[in-house]
Amino acid sequence: MTAYTATVTVRLKRGVLDPEAETTQQALERLGFELSDLRSADRFEVDLDAADAGEAADRADEMAERLLANPTIHDYDVAVAER
Amino acid sequence: MTAYTATVTVRLKRGVLDPEAETTQQALERLGFELSDLRSADRFEVDLDAADAGEAADRADEMAERLLANPTIHDYDVAVAER
Repeated sequence: MTAYTATVTVRLKRGVLDPEAETTQQALERLGFELSDLRSADRFEVDLDAADAGEAADRADEMAERLLANPTIHDYDVAVAER
Repeated sequence: MTAYTATVTVRLKRGVLDPEAETTQQALERLGFELSDLRSADRFEVDLDAADAGEAADRADEMAERLLANPTIHDYDVAVAER
Protein backbone atom coordinates (compact mmCIF):
# COMPACT_ATOMS: atom_id res chain seq x y z
CA MET A 1 0.00 0.00 0.00
CA THR A 2 1.27 3.47 -0.87
CA ALA A 3 0.11 6.77 0.60
CA TYR A 4 -1.53 9.07 -1.94
CA THR A 5 -3.21 12.45 -1.90
CA ALA A 6 -6.14 12.67 -4.29
CA THR A 7 -7.24 16.19 -5.16
CA VAL A 8 -10.87 16.46 -6.23
CA THR A 9 -11.86 19.79 -7.80
CA VAL A 10 -15.61 20.39 -8.00
CA ARG A 11 -16.88 23.16 -10.29
CA LEU A 12 -20.31 24.36 -11.30
CA LYS A 13 -21.22 23.31 -14.84
CA ARG A 14 -21.23 26.03 -17.48
CA GLY A 15 -24.57 27.80 -17.43
CA VAL A 16 -25.24 27.24 -13.73
CA LEU A 17 -25.50 30.59 -11.97
CA ASP A 18 -22.78 31.28 -9.40
CA PRO A 19 -23.83 34.30 -7.31
CA GLU A 20 -20.88 33.87 -4.94
CA ALA A 21 -18.38 34.18 -7.79
CA GLU A 22 -20.30 37.12 -9.21
CA THR A 23 -20.25 38.94 -5.88
CA THR A 24 -16.53 38.23 -5.46
CA GLN A 25 -15.82 39.59 -8.94
CA GLN A 26 -17.82 42.74 -8.25
CA ALA A 27 -16.02 43.27 -4.93
CA LEU A 28 -12.64 42.96 -6.68
CA GLU A 29 -13.73 45.43 -9.35
CA ARG A 30 -14.86 47.84 -6.64
CA LEU A 31 -11.34 47.58 -5.18
CA GLY A 32 -9.98 48.69 -8.57
CA PHE A 33 -8.92 45.33 -10.04
CA GLU A 34 -9.56 44.65 -13.72
CA LEU A 35 -10.62 41.12 -14.56
CA SER A 36 -12.73 39.59 -17.30
CA ASP A 37 -14.20 36.64 -15.39
CA LEU A 38 -14.01 34.81 -12.09
CA ARG A 39 -15.10 31.25 -11.36
CA SER A 40 -15.06 29.57 -8.00
CA ALA A 41 -14.59 25.88 -7.23
CA ASP A 42 -14.30 23.61 -4.23
CA ARG A 43 -11.17 21.61 -3.77
CA PHE A 44 -10.91 18.51 -1.56
CA GLU A 45 -7.53 16.98 -0.73
CA VAL A 46 -8.06 13.38 0.37
CA ASP A 47 -5.21 11.38 1.93
CA LEU A 48 -5.64 7.66 1.36
CA ASP A 49 -3.67 4.43 1.05
CA ALA A 50 -4.00 2.40 -2.12
CA ALA A 51 -2.16 -0.30 -4.05
CA ASP A 52 -1.39 2.07 -6.93
CA ALA A 53 -2.27 5.50 -8.32
CA GLY A 54 -5.03 4.04 -10.49
CA GLU A 55 -6.83 2.56 -7.49
CA ALA A 56 -6.45 5.83 -5.56
CA ALA A 57 -7.96 7.75 -8.50
CA ASP A 58 -10.83 5.26 -8.81
CA ARG A 59 -11.71 5.63 -5.15
CA ALA A 60 -11.52 9.44 -5.25
CA ASP A 61 -13.71 9.32 -8.34
CA GLU A 62 -16.30 7.26 -6.48
CA MET A 63 -16.18 9.70 -3.53
CA ALA A 64 -16.91 12.54 -5.95
CA GLU A 65 -19.78 10.62 -7.57
CA ARG A 66 -21.39 9.63 -4.29
CA LEU A 67 -20.83 12.68 -2.09
CA LEU A 68 -18.48 15.50 -3.08
CA ALA A 69 -20.17 16.52 -6.34
CA ASN A 70 -23.80 16.82 -7.38
CA PRO A 71 -23.89 15.50 -10.96
CA THR A 72 -26.87 17.70 -11.84
CA ILE A 73 -24.93 20.92 -11.40
CA HIS A 74 -21.24 19.99 -10.95
CA ASP A 75 -18.31 18.80 -13.02
CA TYR A 76 -15.29 17.43 -11.21
CA ASP A 77 -11.78 16.25 -11.89
CA VAL A 78 -9.42 14.09 -9.88
CA ALA A 79 -5.62 14.33 -9.66
CA VAL A 80 -3.52 11.87 -7.68
CA ALA A 81 -0.01 12.37 -6.29
CA GLU A 82 2.15 10.25 -4.02
CA ARG A 83 2.33 11.64 -0.53
CA MET B 1 -1.52 42.29 -23.41
CA THR B 2 -2.01 38.55 -23.11
CA ALA B 3 -4.99 36.72 -21.64
CA TYR B 4 -4.15 34.70 -18.53
CA THR B 5 -6.05 32.60 -16.05
CA ALA B 6 -4.73 32.96 -12.50
CA THR B 7 -5.77 30.20 -10.12
CA VAL B 8 -5.79 31.23 -6.47
CA THR B 9 -6.10 28.36 -3.97
CA VAL B 10 -7.05 29.43 -0.46
CA ARG B 11 -6.55 26.94 2.39
CA LEU B 12 -6.97 27.12 6.12
CA LYS B 13 -3.65 27.30 7.95
CA ARG B 14 -2.52 24.19 9.83
CA GLY B 15 -4.11 24.18 13.25
CA VAL B 16 -7.23 26.10 12.23
CA LEU B 17 -10.30 23.92 12.82
CA ASP B 18 -12.20 22.94 9.68
CA PRO B 19 -15.59 21.52 10.73
CA GLU B 20 -16.80 21.30 7.12
CA ALA B 21 -13.89 19.05 6.14
CA GLU B 22 -14.37 16.98 9.28
CA THR B 23 -18.06 16.46 8.52
CA THR B 24 -17.27 15.56 4.91
CA GLN B 25 -14.66 13.03 6.05
CA GLN B 26 -17.10 11.45 8.50
CA ALA B 27 -19.81 11.25 5.82
CA LEU B 28 -17.38 9.49 3.45
CA GLU B 29 -16.39 7.06 6.19
CA ARG B 30 -20.06 6.36 6.89
CA LEU B 31 -20.42 5.47 3.19
CA GLY B 32 -17.64 2.89 3.66
CA PHE B 33 -14.66 4.81 2.26
CA GLU B 34 -11.30 4.52 4.01
CA LEU B 35 -9.26 7.72 4.15
CA SER B 36 -6.68 9.07 6.57
CA ASP B 37 -7.40 12.79 6.19
CA LEU B 38 -9.44 15.29 4.20
CA ARG B 39 -8.75 19.00 3.76
CA SER B 40 -10.93 21.45 1.90
CA ALA B 41 -9.88 24.58 0.06
CA ASP B 42 -11.44 27.30 -2.05
CA ARG B 43 -10.25 27.78 -5.57
CA PHE B 44 -10.75 30.95 -7.60
CA GLU B 45 -10.03 31.03 -11.33
CA VAL B 46 -9.54 34.64 -12.40
CA ASP B 47 -9.38 35.55 -16.08
CA LEU B 48 -7.34 38.72 -16.65
CA ASP B 49 -5.22 40.48 -19.25
CA ALA B 50 -1.64 41.36 -18.36
CA ALA B 51 1.64 42.24 -20.07
CA ASP B 52 3.28 39.00 -18.91
CA ALA B 53 2.78 36.06 -16.54
CA GLY B 54 4.68 37.81 -13.76
CA GLU B 55 2.32 40.78 -13.80
CA ALA B 56 -0.71 38.46 -13.85
CA ALA B 57 0.67 36.59 -10.83
CA ASP B 58 1.37 39.85 -8.98
CA ARG B 59 -2.17 41.06 -9.51
CA ALA B 60 -3.70 37.73 -8.45
CA ASP B 61 -1.46 37.82 -5.39
CA GLU B 62 -2.76 41.27 -4.48
CA MET B 63 -6.38 40.08 -4.97
CA ALA B 64 -5.68 37.26 -2.52
CA GLU B 65 -4.07 39.62 0.00
CA ARG B 66 -6.87 42.17 -0.18
CA LEU B 67 -10.00 40.05 -0.56
CA LEU B 68 -9.84 36.35 -1.35
CA ALA B 69 -7.83 35.20 1.68
CA ASN B 70 -7.88 36.21 5.32
CA PRO B 71 -4.20 36.25 6.37
CA THR B 72 -5.08 35.44 9.97
CA ILE B 73 -6.44 32.00 9.12
CA HIS B 74 -5.58 31.32 5.46
CA ASP B 75 -2.59 30.41 3.34
CA TYR B 76 -2.88 30.78 -0.41
CA ASP B 77 -0.98 30.04 -3.57
CA VAL B 78 -1.25 31.45 -7.06
CA ALA B 79 -0.68 29.65 -10.37
CA VAL B 80 -0.85 31.43 -13.72
CA ALA B 81 -1.48 29.90 -17.15
CA GLU B 82 -2.04 31.46 -20.58
CA ARG B 83 -5.63 31.28 -21.65
